[in-house]
Amino acid sequence: MSTKSESTEPKVLPVNFGLLVFPTFQALDAFGPLDVLNLLSLSFPMNLSIIARTLEPVSTKPRDPSLNPLRSNFGESVMPTHDFTNAPPLDVLIIPGGYGVLADDLDPLLEFVRRTYPTLKYLLTICTGSWIAARAGVLDGKRATSNKNGWAMTKEIGPNVKWIAHARWVVDGNIWTASGVTAGMDSALAFVEEVYGKDQAQKIAGEMEYERHEDPSWDPFADKYNLPKDTA
Amino acid sequence: MSTKSESTEPKVLPVNFGLLVFPTFQALDAFGPLDVLNLLSLSFPMNLSIIARTLEPVSTKPRDPSLNPLRSNFGESVMPTHDFTNAPPLDVLIIPGGYGVLADDLDPLLEFVRRTYPTLKYLLTICTGSWIAARAGVLDGKRATSNKNGWAMTKEIGPNVKWIAHARWVVDGNIWTASGVTAGMDSALAFVEEVYGKDQAQKIAGEMEYERHEDPSWDPFADKYNLPKDTA
Repeated sequence: MSTKSESTEPKVLPVNFGLLVFPTFQALDAFGPLDVLNLLSLSFPMNLSIIARTLEPVSTKPRDPSLNPLRSNFGESVMPTHDFTNAPPLDVLIIPGGYGVLADDLDPLLEFVRRTYPTLKYLLTICTGSWIAARAGVLDGKRATSNKNGWAMTKEIGPNVKWIAHARWVVDGNIWTASGVTAGMDSALAFVEEVYGKDQAQKIAGEMEYERHEDPSWDPFADKYNLPKDTA
Repeated sequence: MSTKSESTEPKVLPVNFGLLVFPTFQALDAFGPLDVLNLLSLSFPMNLSIIARTLEPVSTKPRDPSLNPLRSNFGESVMPTHDFTNAPPLDVLIIPGGYGVLADDLDPLLEFVRRTYPTLKYLLTICTGSWIAARAGVLDGKRATSNKNGWAMTKEIGPNVKWIAHARWVVDGNIWTASGVTAGMDSALAFVEEVYGKDQAQKIAGEMEYERHEDPSWDPFADKYNLPKDTA
């Protein structure tokens, strides 16, 4: 149990997790947090649904040829288990980022996020996954972060979001937003610590041989891009 | 170009990469290094084949029910692009670990590794992926490492390997073996630094917002398990 919990009632742990995928998602945005949860699922009863627009394999490959000028044929495809019409009730929804978050055909995905968020215990975004949450409107008025390269666009995409530039991750209510790519591992481990207890988070970090960042304000990458210290 | 290269000839960069997958592979063993390479492939012409016994989706889920006592339904499936009979010529083969490395039906996979290794420029293993390379015989007489939990079994599986207990990763000739799970990201970034140059490695680490470990001997996890300082 988290030491932060003030309730004496037993905590109802989340069971049903969903990962949202779309063409040109960033692989490690998804698989960093997921592998934390893969290991957790050996100690707690947990289910994962992988949710996409259709049940066809979803690839990390660039859709936009201008992003692949050398014509590399390099990417990985994951198999969805559900589409937006038949996804089961979820306790936790995880949204990775990637170049695909800017696609102009995401309306069904944004609508799925919009209608699913009110039913969730927790929403977790990684990197520009927060742009999807922002486009769906669920971050309005909330504190959130995103990756640090391209921060100016972050502000454009979510003009009503209280974006925090210097943060490895940000928690506002039941929404956990992580900074770029590998920040998702730290955010996921902090989430596990909050919900399942510190021992679980430390055990999993040890199994992953990961030197985790436990301070959510640790962010040398915001410094690298000279981002403002206050909410931007 | 690497500063370690003593040749004045232009380096021929690897182009064709392969990832070997098998049931119950560890997701982050694969997707940590792969996402380093996904980003690299936007700057260099590179191809990736995902190679498995068949073209069916390959899942990270435990096959052995004893490893999933709470009956979680949690895992991710990736799509192979090739099987062992039609994989293209490769410059680099990447082998992740995971509980599946101990399966008793891996003979075709081990045979694929055995016959492919002599054709490679580089072999990269992550975590217990080195157990597969050891079982295939390609690590005999070489220095190598593996994950640090379960080190005793590492020695049993590769009795003729010069296992290095304290190492984030080990390079012997053209074989790069990484320690547990997230060590694969550091090893992959070191590989990129050696082959493509330090600027590329630093650029990608920055894009991933990853504070990389650049010292291959950094290994608090070996200390955690009280592993011997010398070759074990």
